[in-house]
Parts: sequence; C-alpha cells; structure tokens
Amino acid sequence: MNDKRNDLPSLEPAAGNGLLNRRIFLEGALLAGATTAGLSAAAADPLPVAPWMKKPGPHFAPYGMPSSFESKVVRAVTPPNNPLTAGVGSSRTPHHLLEGMMTPSGLHFERSHSGIPDIDPEQHRLVIHGLVKRPLVFTLEALSRYPMTSRIAFVECAGNSGALNAPQAAPRLDVAAIHGLLSCSEWTGVKLSTLLDEAGVEPAARWLLAEGADSSGMSRSFPIAKAMDDAMICLYQNGERVRPSNGYPVRLLLPGFEGNMNVKWLRRLKLTAEPTMTKDETSKYTILLKDEKAWQFAFPLEVKSMITRPSPGLLLKGPGFYEISGLAWSGNGGIRQVEVSTDGGKSWALAALSGPNLPKAPVRFRAAWQWNGGPATLQSRATDDTGMVQPSRAAFIAERGLRGNYHFNAIASWGINEKGEASNVYA
Amino acid sequence: MNDKRNDLPSLEPAAGNGLLNRRIFLEGALLAGATTAGLSAAAADPLPVAPWMKKPGPHFAPYGMPSSFESKVVRAVTPPNNPLTAGVGSSRTPHHLLEGMMTPSGLHFERSHSGIPDIDPEQHRLVIHGLVKRPLVFTLEALSRYPMTSRIAFVECAGNSGALNAPQAAPRLDVAAIHGLLSCSEWTGVKLSTLLDEAGVEPAARWLLAEGADSSGMSRSFPIAKAMDDAMICLYQNGERVRPSNGYPVRLLLPGFEGNMNVKWLRRLKLTAEPTMTKDETSKYTILLKDEKAWQFAFPLEVKSMITRPSPGLLLKGPGFYEISGLAWSGNGGIRQVEVSTDGGKSWALAALSGPNLPKAPVRFRAAWQWNGGPATLQSRATDDTGMVQPSRAAFIAERGLRGNYHFNAIASWGINEKGEASNVYA
Repeated sequence: MNDKRNDLPSLEPAAGNGLLNRRIFLEGALLAGATTAGLSAAAADPLPVAPWMKKPGPHFAPYGMPSSFESKVVRAVTPPNNPLTAGVGSSRTPHHLLEGMMTPSGLHFERSHSGIPDIDPEQHRLVIHGLVKRPLVFTLEALSRYPMTSRIAFVECAGNSGALNAPQAAPRLDVAAIHGLLSCSEWTGVKLSTLLDEAGVEPAARWLLAEGADSSGMSRSFPIAKAMDDAMICLYQNGERVRPSNGYPVRLLLPGFEGNMNVKWLRRLKLTAEPTMTKDETSKYTILLKDEKAWQFAFPLEVKSMITRPSPGLLLKGPGFYEISGLAWSGNGGIRQVEVSTDGGKSWALAALSGPNLPKAPVRFRAAWQWNGGPATLQSRATDDTGMVQPSRAAFIAERGLRGNYHFNAIASWGINEKGEASNVYA
Repeated sequence: MNDKRNDLPSLEPAAGNGLLNRRIFLEGALLAGATTAGLSAAAADPLPVAPWMKKPGPHFAPYGMPSSFESKVVRAVTPPNNPLTAGVGSSRTPHHLLEGMMTPSGLHFERSHSGIPDIDPEQHRLVIHGLVKRPLVFTLEALSRYPMTSRIAFVECAGNSGALNAPQAAPRLDVAAIHGLLSCSEWTGVKLSTLLDEAGVEPAARWLLAEGADSSGMSRSFPIAKAMDDAMICLYQNGERVRPSNGYPVRLLLPGFEGNMNVKWLRRLKLTAEPTMTKDETSKYTILLKDEKAWQFAFPLEVKSMITRPSPGLLLKGPGFYEISGLAWSGNGGIRQVEVSTDGGKSWALAALSGPNLPKAPVRFRAAWQWNGGPATLQSRATDDTGMVQPSRAAFIAERGLRGNYHFNAIASWGINEKGEASNVYA
C-alpha cells in the first residue's frame, strides 16, 4: 500500500473557479480534509450498537420497495392530478435524487394524453396491415415466440427542458421540473424488422403509422428505414414486463427518436406510402422557428446534458470538495465527451465518464470541484460521436426564437450563491 | 425493402436436434410459419375498439408499480415466512419470467441471516479503523461528498444452484428455485480505495473485516488487494438508494466475489494483518471437498450460465420455432462465448449475445431452436474471458463430491418431453 498523501497529481486545477483534473476519478486521489462534513475520528472499540442490531429485522417480501426513509424520492406530477384532466400531463423523474445511468421503473417519467389504460394482455392485439403482403394479428403469446433482442436506451419527451426557453429564468425550477422527462431502461423485445419480414413489405411502403390503444389514440408516422434499423416491439423493461405507464403490454421503441414516437400500448402498425399526418404530428410535435415556419418530422433528439448534483434543492454545506455529477445523451449515438464549467462557460474541464457509455443511452459524467464559497455558475456541454455539440442558449434562441419548446438542447446553467444554494439561471 | 422469403441463410442447422444458426439474431431472418400460435390474418379496417380505448385511463402515480396482470411475477421466499425463523432464509429472482440482463430492484434476490434491519440513515455510521493512520467515522452525508463511480454488476449467493448437487434431480425445481440467488443491478458509490487513502493504510494491513449492522453481525474478511482494486461502498442501486434488503443505506460491493462478502448494512471496516476468521467464514461459506478437506477464502464465483426459457413451468405449445434464452456470468470478468445444446451435450451451437456484455455482469444469450416435438435436453455452457469453461456435472462431482453446495457452476440441464413440459434433469 502506498499512501498517496505525498503524491497529489490529480488535485491540479483543470479550469477556473476550482475545477480539478478528472484523473481523480480515473486514478483515485487523496482528498484528505476536503470532505469534513460529518467526518470524525473513530470511537474506540467497542462500537456503539444501534437499536436495529438488537433484534431480528422484518421478513422478506415477494416484491420489494424502497426504504420508508426515502419516501420523498418520487416523481413530480404536473399538472397535479385533477379529475378534469384525467391522466393528461406528465410525471417527472427526480434526477437530483438519483445516481448512475439507469432509472428505476417506478420513477420512469410518464407522459400521457388520456391517462394510463389498464390493458388485459390476453385481450390485447397488435395488427400489422396496410402495404404488406400478409396482414397479421399478433397476440402477446405470438409476439413472445419471436427471437428477441435487448438494449439499454433512453426515452425523452420532445418537450423536455423546454422550460428553459421562457424569456426569464424561473429560479426555483429544479432538475425534475426542467429535465425530468428523460429516463433510461433496459428494453427487450422483438426487432420490428423481424415482424415486417413476416408480413412481407410491399415495395411502395415508405412510412409506418404507429397507433396506441389509449383513448386519445396517440399516433405517429415514422420512416421505414428506422423500422428496418433498430426499432423494437418491446415486451420487457428493466427485466420485467413493461410498466403500465410505459405502454404495457407492448410499446414501440425507436431508439433516439423523440418520446411520443415510441408509441405506448401499441395496437397497430400500418405501412403507408406517405406519412399519415396525424393530429399528433401536425397540431403538436412540430418545431416552431422564429420566422413563422416550423420543422416537421425532426425525429432524433439532439445531444444534451444536465448537471444533477449540485442543483436546486440540494445545498452546498460550506466550501470544500464537491463532485459535479450529471447525465449526457444523444439521439444520434454515443457521447464522445462532456465538459464542465463552474465560471459560466469562461473555462471548461473534461469530465470523467463513469459506468457504461452506450449509444442512445445516457452516460453518467463526473467532475471534481473545490468550491471556494463564492458565487459560481455551473454548466455542462456534451459532444456526441457524430461531433454535434450542445449550443449556447443564445445560439439556440437565435435560430429558434422563444417558442422552441421542443428539442431544447442548449447548455443549461445552475447558479450557486454564497449560501451554497443552487438556482436555475440564464448565463 | 427486400423480402427475405427467398433468402434463408440463417435457418441452416448449427447443431443437432433443431438448433439454428445464431445469425438469426445478428442479421434477422424470415421465420414465416414458425410461430403460428396466436397469429392470424388481420381483420379489415376498422379494427375493433377495446374497452380501455373508450374512456381516459387512471392517473399518474408518484411511484409506479407493475401491471396488476403481472401479480404472479414475484420472488419465491424460502423457507416460507415463519415467526421462528424471522428473516432467516432467502427470496429468489423469478428469472423464468424476466428478460434482459437487469433485475428490477423489487425482484433482486434476498439472503439474510437475521431479517432486514430498518436503518435510519441519519443514525447510521460507517467506521474505518484497525491498521490505519487515522480511524474515521463517516455519516451518510460525509460518504456522499466523495467522488463516486458507477458500474453494472451481478451479485450471486455462494449457495446459488447448489440444489443441483443433490444425488437425485428434483424434477419440479424451476429457475428461481435453482438459480434464483443471482441478480444484477447498476451500483453507484465511493471507491473503497478512496476512503482507505483518506484513512491512511498501515503497511502491516493485508486484510479487511467487513461487518453488517444486522442483528446477526454478518461479517467477512477480504484481501486488501480487492479493496484497492474494484471494491465499492455503494449508496445507490439502479439509480435510487440501495433497497433495504440489499443493505440500505450502505453496502459493500466486491464485484465477482460471492454474495455474502458484499456485506449489507455495512457498519465497519477494520484493517487487519490476518483474516479475522469470523463465524461466517469458518462454520459457513467454506467449500467442502470429497476428501474431507475444504477450501476457505475461494472468493470469485466461477463462470456459469442458466437457460431461463424454456424452463420448468413454461410450456412449449407444439412443435415449431422457439428462442432459447438465458444468462451467463463470471466473477472473473466477462463472457467470451455461450454454447447451447438441445441433445444433452452431444452437439453444441454458439448462442448470440444480446445487449451489453460487461465484466462481472450477466449477459443475455439467445439461441434459435426448431423443436420437432420430440424429447430434448437443453444445456448451456459458458466460457469466460479468462478461458474458464463450465464443467460437466460429472466432472464437478468428481472433484467436489456430493456435498459441494457452494460455488456450484456445472452445466445444468432441462429435459423437454413430448408434451412440451420442462423439468430439472441430470444429463
């Protein structure tokens, strides 16, 4: 064992306002004295015996839940449930209270246009029809007979982070309120191309209509190239059957494409020559530009990142060492690098990437920061493996104006004040 | 679009008794007619409208749960809860009902020697003492201030699959009963080496004692080389805080080492010159050999695999195409390959690996099988990236005898009869 006390290569500055070299994560480094909060010299043996060590604990459970001490780690429901808007709205993943890249299924964000249908899987059918040689109806059991595939992938609502396009920054918006319409699961199901081969695609087919079995009949068109690439008909999420709010018993997964296209409660796929122009791709989910025009059918979500710690609601308790932790993702593939700034973008340091870095999945990034107790502005800037970089907020608005609530992927900022409080700011 | 109907390279046999080439998974292939169960020609438009499409569905929930139609997907508790054995025993992951590589936290296996302590995180402390320069006491808040790391890793009980070492095969044992003491999560926490650097390791320290805050005082010794390699002090599991039955609020993770060493409810780490010889590494968790000797301190779990589908309790409904799906893992690193046999090991075909293949994590394997309706014996045989291969059951018993319930990693067999029923057999 060599004590690294006299060998501190990783504590060298990497950018302004206290950012340290990411080698802290790659090589380890001595942080003595940096994290004094709650740290004290050990008591002599014997250690005190806590009450829960004095009797056997509760039994096992068929299906486990988080500790009762974690009851505040829940989704933020917006708007709050209201009988007049039954299930119309969203609930948001509390990323400021989570770590790693996976989202527990119970905290996966929800977005619905007419609530969460309670579907009997024995009664549910998936139909493939339209420009095919053999229209087919699949039961769940029939779908389960096909070869499957698994992948870890994010799903993100097209409107995620759109709150940052308001003219004035709302200081109290937290990670969940701004960025909580993103989650990550392992998905397992049948490749859509396998089912299309079974049905036999007519040469004239160029698009597919996907329709959900919710009462809003949520439906979107997508190109056949995506169907034959990585589209999946998902039956499982994080090992178990897809959760009701994520489309039980069967959802479409179009990895990297905006969330609403990953149609939940999938009941049919119709092959067509042209896009169907559903209500969900004409009155909604088109991208307004500042010149009164709009983009339609802009499918993949652009490279983005968010800092989850520190963030609003989490307090820095005095100067010293802090890890800046966050997630970065791109609908176009993998993440090449993430940079972090604590001086509002004047200088940047490379963050360490931690855990699996998979295409179309979020990767956890970490940066080491010695906070001096003064004001700071935290930002993260991701670059994907196509070379796309997150734009500044100014550059984003120059192109999109202040109505561009969809596909908002500009660099976001948390302001830190001298009390250690974080707030949503524009910088 | 080219219809692959006239181009069937992947349906070529790869081994005896109906095993097909794994290119089905890599390239896709036409399976027309292979999966007729529940498949029928589509009805004409308009499609029937299901009852759940006629009204809005239920609202969002702060913390989501599986569909009520999946109420049978639960852990198998053994022995059944009994006031005389409060929390002593295990509950097992129902892998035959799951897919992919991740285990939902609610279905992660449990193994406890005295129930699940209900620990208040504000009161809990982690002590590092013994042969260190600066004994330290950490609150949860102090631990949270250190740089973190994330990885996906399995945890497996040393006794998992030990049921296969009984002299006679119990035909009704299913995947959960035999192999259910294995699960996989994403773990996030502080590298143990970071905390040891903070405490300052004395040169004489060669081992660590890890002790849990359960009433059994579960404790194990492990070498300092593991502590300085990939050992983690975990605070998060699958994104949220570690579940109570997995060690809330803090557990030790020794990736690849037998489950009990990943001490839950971790309260102290004591650095020592020698192993402590606790009750949990002398009276238990030593590996009996047939010559009255035993191995002690055999830490990493050897390469293993299991077929989860088909398996006991799941019925093959008539001849035709089936996917053989399972998991393979090794405590020594990654999985190089998995082979599958349907003729009891006479011939083998390479399986496709699906989804992330990460070191010390399970990887999903899939093989394509055309069942002819006759008897079959399904086996899987994994090879890890150190070159270790699962032994036959005969070879395992020749070395270990019939008392070797720990670290049982021999090839397992499911027998399929002409009714399509699967059962545990020795072959």
